[in-house]
Amino acid sequence: MAAAPVWSVDPRTGKRREQVGTEATASDVDAAVRAAHAAREPLADRSVRAAFLRAAAARLEAAGEDILHTADAETALGEPRLTGELARTCAQLRAFAGEIEDGAYLGVTIDHPDPDATPPCPDLRRYKLPLGVVAVYAASNFPLAFSVPGGDTASALAAGCPVVVKAHPDHPATSELTGAALRRGAADAGLPEDVLCVLHGFDAGLELIGHPLVAAAGFTGSVRGGRALFDAAAARPQPIPFHGELGSLNPVVVTAEAARERAADIGAGLGGSMTMGTGQFCTKPGLVLAPEGPDGDRLLDALTDAVHKAPHGPLLDARMREAFLAGVEARTRLDGVEAPVRAGADPEDGQAVGPGYLTVPARKLTEPSHELLLEECFGPLTVVARYRDRDEIADVLARLPGNLTATLHIGEAEGAGEAESAAGAGEAEGAGSAGQAAQLLAALTPLAGRVLVNGWPTGVAVAPAQQHGGPYPATTSTSTSVGATAIERWLRPVAYQNTPEPLLPPELRDGNPLGLPRRVDGRREN
Amino acid sequence: MAAAPVWSVDPRTGKRREQVGTEATASDVDAAVRAAHAAREPLADRSVRAAFLRAAAARLEAAGEDILHTADAETALGEPRLTGELARTCAQLRAFAGEIEDGAYLGVTIDHPDPDATPPCPDLRRYKLPLGVVAVYAASNFPLAFSVPGGDTASALAAGCPVVVKAHPDHPATSELTGAALRRGAADAGLPEDVLCVLHGFDAGLELIGHPLVAAAGFTGSVRGGRALFDAAAARPQPIPFHGELGSLNPVVVTAEAARERAADIGAGLGGSMTMGTGQFCTKPGLVLAPEGPDGDRLLDALTDAVHKAPHGPLLDARMREAFLAGVEARTRLDGVEAPVRAGADPEDGQAVGPGYLTVPARKLTEPSHELLLEECFGPLTVVARYRDRDEIADVLARLPGNLTATLHIGEAEGAGEAESAAGAGEAEGAGSAGQAAQLLAALTPLAGRVLVNGWPTGVAVAPAQQHGGPYPATTSTSTSVGATAIERWLRPVAYQNTPEPLLPPELRDGNPLGLPRRVDGRREN
Repeated sequence: MAAAPVWSVDPRTGKRREQVGTEATASDVDAAVRAAHAAREPLADRSVRAAFLRAAAARLEAAGEDILHTADAETALGEPRLTGELARTCAQLRAFAGEIEDGAYLGVTIDHPDPDATPPCPDLRRYKLPLGVVAVYAASNFPLAFSVPGGDTASALAAGCPVVVKAHPDHPATSELTGAALRRGAADAGLPEDVLCVLHGFDAGLELIGHPLVAAAGFTGSVRGGRALFDAAAARPQPIPFHGELGSLNPVVVTAEAARERAADIGAGLGGSMTMGTGQFCTKPGLVLAPEGPDGDRLLDALTDAVHKAPHGPLLDARMREAFLAGVEARTRLDGVEAPVRAGADPEDGQAVGPGYLTVPARKLTEPSHELLLEECFGPLTVVARYRDRDEIADVLARLPGNLTATLHIGEAEGAGEAESAAGAGEAEGAGSAGQAAQLLAALTPLAGRVLVNGWPTGVAVAPAQQHGGPYPATTSTSTSVGATAIERWLRPVAYQNTPEPLLPPELRDGNPLGLPRRVDGRREN
Repeated sequence: MAAAPVWSVDPRTGKRREQVGTEATASDVDAAVRAAHAAREPLADRSVRAAFLRAAAARLEAAGEDILHTADAETALGEPRLTGELARTCAQLRAFAGEIEDGAYLGVTIDHPDPDATPPCPDLRRYKLPLGVVAVYAASNFPLAFSVPGGDTASALAAGCPVVVKAHPDHPATSELTGAALRRGAADAGLPEDVLCVLHGFDAGLELIGHPLVAAAGFTGSVRGGRALFDAAAARPQPIPFHGELGSLNPVVVTAEAARERAADIGAGLGGSMTMGTGQFCTKPGLVLAPEGPDGDRLLDALTDAVHKAPHGPLLDARMREAFLAGVEARTRLDGVEAPVRAGADPEDGQAVGPGYLTVPARKLTEPSHELLLEECFGPLTVVARYRDRDEIADVLARLPGNLTATLHIGEAEGAGEAESAAGAGEAEGAGSAGQAAQLLAALTPLAGRVLVNGWPTGVAVAPAQQHGGPYPATTSTSTSVGATAIERWLRPVAYQNTPEPLLPPELRDGNPLGLPRRVDGRREN
């Protein structure tokens, strides 16, 4: 039987653009994993790895025009957005090169012998090693930043793990182009190109998660797909870490004071955020708690304006389009739900959809019949739940699943003065407006990995302090897929006990020959 | 139906000592988890937590006589060993109090806004929060250090997570006593006693892992029991982290030079390590690769002497005794296996077993028929595999599963001179003796979390650089259950974006009011 062809499809027309190779067979998967595994020794050199990530960024930039054109043709996300995404992707690779050189991620800890400890402490020296081959499952909605050259790949390579990417079927040509750029970057740094391999095909993805030499996996995508792979990773004879980003509602709470002071700004900002990338951001605000009454009405007026002005466009593929239209339909039919701007198919463009939003009384969200409104609807739709009082906010928040982000919009007085802190606010009664804001922040914090005040969650900065990951189903682990600490997912610690200096890796030798940040006998160095 | 009674049993006689309450019903489990969950807010205060852990240590010491007597009566491990274990357990609680105050575990990272970044970077401030209620499954073989007041409990409480312990049925009375001491320590510090709850019963353990308010679990025990709970944790609607320490063979390689220089010492040391605690240490050396020929023979002579001198004693319970005797039997029957000192039942003491060891040609270990020899046999037995050359060592190492520890015994010249490092040794041909040692260390490193040179793996120091955890089945995650970083298992990061200073927790405010170690705009503070 011939291997199934892989097609690049134009979502603006629904038509095939070109064939991009074929789906990987089980033996292709095995060959790719073995080749990647064989490349782990040369990849163990930290300075070579840093050079590789920088060379990869340069290669991506050199091929930028081709990549951007192809990515736009396959995703319809538009070249301006994709240009920013490419810049961010390259900056991310370079940031990880910096993290490799900094070396704090190694967590070097040295305890010299202490015969007086209980029990007596031998000489112990600990740092972190790469886990081995990492399987990366690419996302559809960021064909660069969360795909072949994205955060999972960059952080795994930075950790010293070779990567086998299961490409997303929505942009196979872009995957090939970016994969080739990374492989050229590897060669530039004197590494085997197979430190990064790209495979296509659904079955190949299942084969990959079960391969004995695959030591960990990263995933960005749907709850259904991610959970299936998570389950497969856990069911292996030797289970492996599975870091999956699955789905997120990204709740927003707008306080009465915020609505009174900034109704128009908040409505416009919400409209911009929820329609960005045709609503296909994993951080799209999908549920907004806004007050009933005239201030909330003004917010909706501004939202209506913004959504009417937002462009229509195709979703990433036909299946997503079907799911979006069905999701809008099912939500709109629920009791108490209204659609001030109806999202749906564009009558003048067979592929495009238009954005919209729904409203519902917040108290409805506590009814089992309305649970669908607490699930992510991928695409340009948000739900505004109108609350009458703070108890209704609390009741809704208590029912929410885990999220990547949670956002609080507050008034000026609520952000000022001596409030208790977010973490410690507790249930204090009769607090002032700042105290109430602190209580809301404390109620949102358990729901998400990133908590924002007076902003919008779309747009995820690549920064050391970033946390892109939250309670399940936002993430299947407690990790982040963006930011410096994303590297921690692909490492395991090892401690050497009473090992003669000449046999120790240089990172662990006395005198700190590599100048690393270390903890030595409880004291921090560098 | 009345709840099943829980009996304390004396393993020296096999007779019941006393009834210790009853097994927890599903509603008992629910009540305990809810009570623990309700205690998480007071536990959020770091200085109160540190005081609690110190008070708990003091309470354990105050009740020390009763605890030691009871633990010895239930485990037959002997008061000298248990005295050391109690000291270590208390030192561990105090060490975590120190870690709480140090605050490095919070991983505070602050990035001030950077409008020139790609994409522009907002104000981001990240630290770590406790996950919530932690379920701890206690081990049988360390009734203090890996049980109710042990490392899982201490590290979870240090992280700010209330703990519900599923006690081990081999020492229920000790579990109650130590649990009461911890609860009194909580009260001493002004905390609700329910920050720590103790439950009994197999079914209660299953109920616990599925409870919606349980946010993570720690386990020390068998591969079968641990894997069943791991699977249950992964199958939950919302999967939770499961940090299980399951089983470990703890391989030892003795080079020809080491045997020539120190055959008698190595044989005696091995005999001491493998019979310690009647062979019931998770770090017991279970497989030793020693050279054929006269140096290896001298090693065995010394081992024979040491094993003959080692005391007989009861195992922790009747089920373990049966498993041990059957395990010895099955291994002894294998082709090529000999038993210079036969382990087995003590004919003069109906409960006791005597230690022993087996020998086998190393090449047999590569045959599928002999796979049993690559599995842990819990109790005082070790297997010495005699190798003819280094290729046979490599062949055996290639077949080993993951381990807590791996040990290398080398000669003096092998630990000296300018060798390549453990991590980078690779496959260099024709290296000198130090180079060969480095190659062996490099081959052992992927197999374990702790790698020792010229020592014995039993005895796990409580130290910042400790790593007690290794590739599956040693551990179900990449974490450690001993040492400062054990706390990392019970935390998740959260980042606050553009949050006004008064709403931020003090840990994340400008000016570092708490004097924490932090990373601010890429620079390390304190």
